[in-house]
Amino acid sequence: MNPNDIEKHSFEIIEQELEIELPSDIKPIVKRVIHTTADFSYAENMYFSPDAIKTALGEIKSGVTFVTDTNMALSGINKKALKELNCNAVCYVSDEDVAVMAKKENITRAVCAVKKAAMNNKRCIMVVGNAPTALIQIEKMYRENEFKPLLVIGVPVGFVNVVDSKEAIIDSGMECIIARGRKGGSNVAASIVNALLYMCQDDNREWRR
Amino acid sequence: MNPNDIEKHSFEIIEQELEIELPSDIKPIVKRVIHTTADFSYAENMYFSPDAIKTALGEIKSGVTFVTDTNMALSGINKKALKELNCNAVCYVSDEDVAVMAKKENITRAVCAVKKAAMNNKRCIMVVGNAPTALIQIEKMYRENEFKPLLVIGVPVGFVNVVDSKEAIIDSGMECIIARGRKGGSNVAASIVNALLYMCQDDNREWRR
Repeated sequence: MNPNDIEKHSFEIIEQELEIELPSDIKPIVKRVIHTTADFSYAENMYFSPDAIKTALGEIKSGVTFVTDTNMALSGINKKALKELNCNAVCYVSDEDVAVMAKKENITRAVCAVKKAAMNNKRCIMVVGNAPTALIQIEKMYRENEFKPLLVIGVPVGFVNVVDSKEAIIDSGMECIIARGRKGGSNVAASIVNALLYMCQDDNREWRR
Repeated sequence: MNPNDIEKHSFEIIEQELEIELPSDIKPIVKRVIHTTADFSYAENMYFSPDAIKTALGEIKSGVTFVTDTNMALSGINKKALKELNCNAVCYVSDEDVAVMAKKENITRAVCAVKKAAMNNKRCIMVVGNAPTALIQIEKMYRENEFKPLLVIGVPVGFVNVVDSKEAIIDSGMECIIARGRKGGSNVAASIVNALLYMCQDDNREWRR
């Protein structure tokens, strides 16, 4: 089987085994997350704010910047799809100026990277797969009118601060896609971005929907 | 809390919630995989061949090359720890010569990347977090005496060929660390490598054990 057939067959299996009926607009995203994790609990854990999908698709079609919290999430995003849609993706966490700022202000690089994102991008989608402190910083800057990301994809994984940081984004009123609970990760973050990109591409692969 | 304290507290929570008593040599690896996924099912899914840990730690201490199947797995490996231990990590899947070979022979780039690994590395640990076809190729070349990796970390995720490819590695008799079943991923692959690296470092963080 070639990779395309494997992906198609995988999605068919996911479709068969899904025990929950999902709205058609969020289904391609949940299915791709399950494809990435083989974990069906995401069918129950994922939260989408009312206009999250509409906002995401509209902004991607206008060309948008995704800002990821880790290079691992960045490396999982489909660069060909990004380019085809005139979008781009960046990650600031390893930047020299972020490291300098973190040391000087005695805060984490994840928090500094959010500050840099806010300075550099008036229009961006924030993608957080690892650092709850990044989500907490986004929520704080949003509340203080310092940063208005178009959408927050908030799926850090972990045991400390993770659940609360996700709920804070949901409660903020920002448009968001969140994996509630402890689960998530850079791979999940990238798969959500890819699912959104594929939804915007002219693509006759119906099974991706 | 600083990142170090968060990691420590996370490992304490994992320790408390672990319902299975694990042997002390594999415990740091399983705990780090759970830390990466927040998924306790890995405590039951992970398979270690009899000399897997001993082999891994010995080879790392002698300086070894990790060959990953994806750039995402590569990007998740701790470069500072690698360097400190005189080890390195490479990924061939995006190399130009691999793309040319794949097209010419009409096979996947994942398979070609395994062939390149076998040509370039007499002593390496293969790290597969994504492509079951890579595992299948490793098993085939091992069986035909064309490739003898020191260890195979085999944790691809998915629904097609994944379970079988992992069982084939276990049955081959190669030293291996496998996440049985459908689950795994590039993040899981990287976390296993990092756990092994941390076990080799002079490190007074007992909670990492």
